[in-house]
Amino acid sequence: MTERVFNFAAGPATLPLSVLQEAQEQLVSYQGMGMSLLEMSHRSKPVEEVIAGAEENLRSLASIPDNYKIMFLQGGASSQFSMVPMNLLTPGGTADHIVTGNFAKLALQDAQKVGDVRLAGSTEEQDFVRVPLQEELDLNPAADYVHITGNNTIYGTEWPTEPEVGAVPLVSDISSDIFSKPLDITKYGLVYAGAQKNLGAAGVTLVIIREDLLSRSADNLPAMLNYNTHIKSNSAYNTPPVFAIYILGLVIKWLKAQGGLERMAEQNMEKARVLYDALDSSEFYRGHAEPGHRSMMNVTFRLPTADLESQFISESTENGFNELKGHRSVGGIRASLYNAFPKAGAEALVSFMKDFERTNG
Amino acid sequence: MTERVFNFAAGPATLPLSVLQEAQEQLVSYQGMGMSLLEMSHRSKPVEEVIAGAEENLRSLASIPDNYKIMFLQGGASSQFSMVPMNLLTPGGTADHIVTGNFAKLALQDAQKVGDVRLAGSTEEQDFVRVPLQEELDLNPAADYVHITGNNTIYGTEWPTEPEVGAVPLVSDISSDIFSKPLDITKYGLVYAGAQKNLGAAGVTLVIIREDLLSRSADNLPAMLNYNTHIKSNSAYNTPPVFAIYILGLVIKWLKAQGGLERMAEQNMEKARVLYDALDSSEFYRGHAEPGHRSMMNVTFRLPTADLESQFISESTENGFNELKGHRSVGGIRASLYNAFPKAGAEALVSFMKDFERTNG
Repeated sequence: MTERVFNFAAGPATLPLSVLQEAQEQLVSYQGMGMSLLEMSHRSKPVEEVIAGAEENLRSLASIPDNYKIMFLQGGASSQFSMVPMNLLTPGGTADHIVTGNFAKLALQDAQKVGDVRLAGSTEEQDFVRVPLQEELDLNPAADYVHITGNNTIYGTEWPTEPEVGAVPLVSDISSDIFSKPLDITKYGLVYAGAQKNLGAAGVTLVIIREDLLSRSADNLPAMLNYNTHIKSNSAYNTPPVFAIYILGLVIKWLKAQGGLERMAEQNMEKARVLYDALDSSEFYRGHAEPGHRSMMNVTFRLPTADLESQFISESTENGFNELKGHRSVGGIRASLYNAFPKAGAEALVSFMKDFERTNG
Repeated sequence: MTERVFNFAAGPATLPLSVLQEAQEQLVSYQGMGMSLLEMSHRSKPVEEVIAGAEENLRSLASIPDNYKIMFLQGGASSQFSMVPMNLLTPGGTADHIVTGNFAKLALQDAQKVGDVRLAGSTEEQDFVRVPLQEELDLNPAADYVHITGNNTIYGTEWPTEPEVGAVPLVSDISSDIFSKPLDITKYGLVYAGAQKNLGAAGVTLVIIREDLLSRSADNLPAMLNYNTHIKSNSAYNTPPVFAIYILGLVIKWLKAQGGLERMAEQNMEKARVLYDALDSSEFYRGHAEPGHRSMMNVTFRLPTADLESQFISESTENGFNELKGHRSVGGIRASLYNAFPKAGAEALVSFMKDFERTNG
């Protein structure tokens, strides 16, 4: 039997045990071929099948139509902070960024190094307890695109619905909520996501782009920074991160076997409700996010004092609840409940929280 | 028992069996912690130890002094084709590139998109059968740096010694010969290498830079494209490719256990000699590279006709010799003999070659 801790890490994060077990079984000799997938040429048939299979299953899982192209890149979401403006800003054009947390700020800062990018909305003054309301946005209808961050891992907030941006392409960093619920890709011009939260292991970044936007990339972009390079070569212009794509492919298959994205959304809502109900019924714990903007993936909360928070983290760790410490920029507690995280873990945590409150409240 | 084929792939390539076995054993529960390394936060102690341990062992293996900084990046050597000029070209400055093969050409093309970069030598007219001689180089003593490609995987050539570049920093893409022999890093300003040939699995790129060159990077570079970002954060500015760094660390430990780089050079020379001796004593097989410039890592050769080459590839594959087909741009046969490739594989191939010549010669 494999003993498993409850891993609340914000990413890299819990993976399905069956995915890890399959990867382990296949690691030394892939499909009995006498070599590891780690050793195989990226031009070999098995590797081409891994990449094509991951794309095919992903398209079917999330109903991605043919006019959206899929890339498996390297460098994490942080690399997209500059690749997006490099590829999507037109000559003399501008983009609108909406800032709802730490990564959204970093995306804005990098984009401003690349071109003329405006701040079109921010909830920083509200301590990022929510995302902006539609009427708070100052959108430029002539912008090349609008950039948002779908889920804010550090603050535990999530866009309840996409902002209305008219005909301007919407770009979203969905690293921390991708495939936690259905994705209507037709609302977007481009989405990107580092794999290490809901999609697999660190080392691969998924980018989905509406085909017509590919014509914006200038020819003088270095090859690896031009989306067209990767589209034309099926993500194998140079050696792709094969193992990370393989794990992503296994996770996508697992998501399909779980019943797809509608079912994941139901499960994730149930899991998150266990924790949010506990927060709402307590005077001891205080949730950070405003109810209408709460993340289903990252539940953030505080205790009455920083000392109690330290004690909570230390005692919870001793009891097999790992990585509950909030991000250093906000403090407190953060429980990440990605797709592969079991509901039993949320229930066990609530039970621990009640005990802790009884003893220390 | 684990059956292993002889894998002559040019990269991704053969890894030490003991490395694969250790990774397999640890995959589901790393060091008995109840989670996989794939699931652990990049800010967790085990992951920090993986990264710091890989760097420490690498420094000791290759005697890297403190004034050289080490980065584990993503995007492959191809991403360095543009990151090098972005970071090392000074305002108004120029760089010299020497072209000795396909990847060297791609490096030049990307660098020319970034800044003012000259072609300072090429053996393209010689069909890349060798690298340029010192007197054939047209070096600018005021250049910001000189860029070479240490080993040319596709053509099977290798610089016998570094070109003399005076006080100008030498930059080399050593993806395909790194740690196949001792590396005198003090001769270089910067070296870079994709891991998937001699260092591990695809998904991580090693960059070693002389500290003083870090001051050249402009503040307006996007974060992920600025070397200083990665140096300041010990390669963990964002989520690094943890598993690929872990495998690299295991390979570095394996290299140390083999006796270090002098010993690897001896072994690699013995392995390559087995094949080159067979080529030199045959009228049937013709080596591509000139003897003084032959690669110890990639042995390239032709047969009398393209039909015989196809037959050779097909029969060798049936006999358990995998991935002997030459790169599509040159044709013929390529046998890659990286560090982890066993001498027995080279000997078995020569035996097969002799049989093939007897039957078809």
